[in-house]
Amino acid sequence: MKLYYSPTSPFARKVILAAHALGLDSEIEKIRVDVYQPGGSYTEINPLKKIPALQTRDGQILLDSSFIAQYLNDLSPVNKIIPSAPERWQVMSDLAVADGILEASVLRLYEKRRPVDRFDTAFDGRQKDKVDQGFQYFEKNIARFLGEPNIASLTLMCALGYVDFRFPNEKWHDLVPRLQTWYQARQNDEAFLKTTPKD
Amino acid sequence: MKLYYSPTSPFARKVILAAHALGLDSEIEKIRVDVYQPGGSYTEINPLKKIPALQTRDGQILLDSSFIAQYLNDLSPVNKIIPSAPERWQVMSDLAVADGILEASVLRLYEKRRPVDRFDTAFDGRQKDKVDQGFQYFEKNIARFLGEPNIASLTLMCALGYVDFRFPNEKWHDLVPRLQTWYQARQNDEAFLKTTPKD
Repeated sequence: MKLYYSPTSPFARKVILAAHALGLDSEIEKIRVDVYQPGGSYTEINPLKKIPALQTRDGQILLDSSFIAQYLNDLSPVNKIIPSAPERWQVMSDLAVADGILEASVLRLYEKRRPVDRFDTAFDGRQKDKVDQGFQYFEKNIARFLGEPNIASLTLMCALGYVDFRFPNEKWHDLVPRLQTWYQARQNDEAFLKTTPKD
Repeated sequence: MKLYYSPTSPFARKVILAAHALGLDSEIEKIRVDVYQPGGSYTEINPLKKIPALQTRDGQILLDSSFIAQYLNDLSPVNKIIPSAPERWQVMSDLAVADGILEASVLRLYEKRRPVDRFDTAFDGRQKDKVDQGFQYFEKNIARFLGEPNIASLTLMCALGYVDFRFPNEKWHDLVPRLQTWYQARQNDEAFLKTTPKD
């Protein structure tokens, strides 16, 4: 299999952590993509130029980090990171919240990178509100994430890592102490450390 | 079941069409939500304030329109709109492109609604490029969508309807003639007509 990734994409990191948790990482060749490079051929892989994309065992292209995680999970016989129903749906719902924190944070990064006079405080504030509400959701429900990693907890790790990477001056840690303790206990995981984003 | 929706949300429309295709619509009570209303209690349903959300048969909250569609598909014994593997993954990948058109179009709407001096032509152009590339992808692969509806084709219908609703002056129709013919042939579907967005 081939994973089209970039070292700063939190959605690619999520797939890499998922593959690692499933014991599939050695089967995946990683191909680095720069979507900002003009004239690149990545649109033939993904017309939306989003990262990541996976070339599956069959040679097909599969898009969307959550669908890729579902595919990888199905390759493993034990449904290790996405349980079967009925437990499945709570995990997917938690995953949606973690993904939402990521999406809002990516939008905030694009906002920050605009020409200063095009920065919209109201838009940025609405996205930050989603991030904060997402953090509070996990703070309240942290008991669900104390066991073995699942796709929601892996994505939450990526989300917290991404906020620290892109918004290092925003001190979320003190506002959600249980989430912070949870995060600290898992930061030294080998696959997580190895995928620390760098510009 | 309860579906939290708004009449202009294309992601809610996607779930309504999915429920209809699965024969589950009569089991779903629709609850209209206005996420812009200050002090609303919808954050207790979805901390990200995104629409839609589903209260499942078990009374749990399930977020994300694609995960909701997967849940509804699993309730029906025949996997009608999301096939089993291996066909499943092509459908999910196509779904990711249709969802990407929708997400880019929603971002363009937010951009259009900003104070004029905060409108960023470059950002809007990048999103429009995603929409156009997504359209070309479906134009090229239209043969995959000629049979019974699946979650990707239903979402594509919502995407085309949404672009027409929010950007009526952009003439995509002539640029992708096969997609336009495909869309026209399906526009009079009862569930699609009944969910036409109105401001």
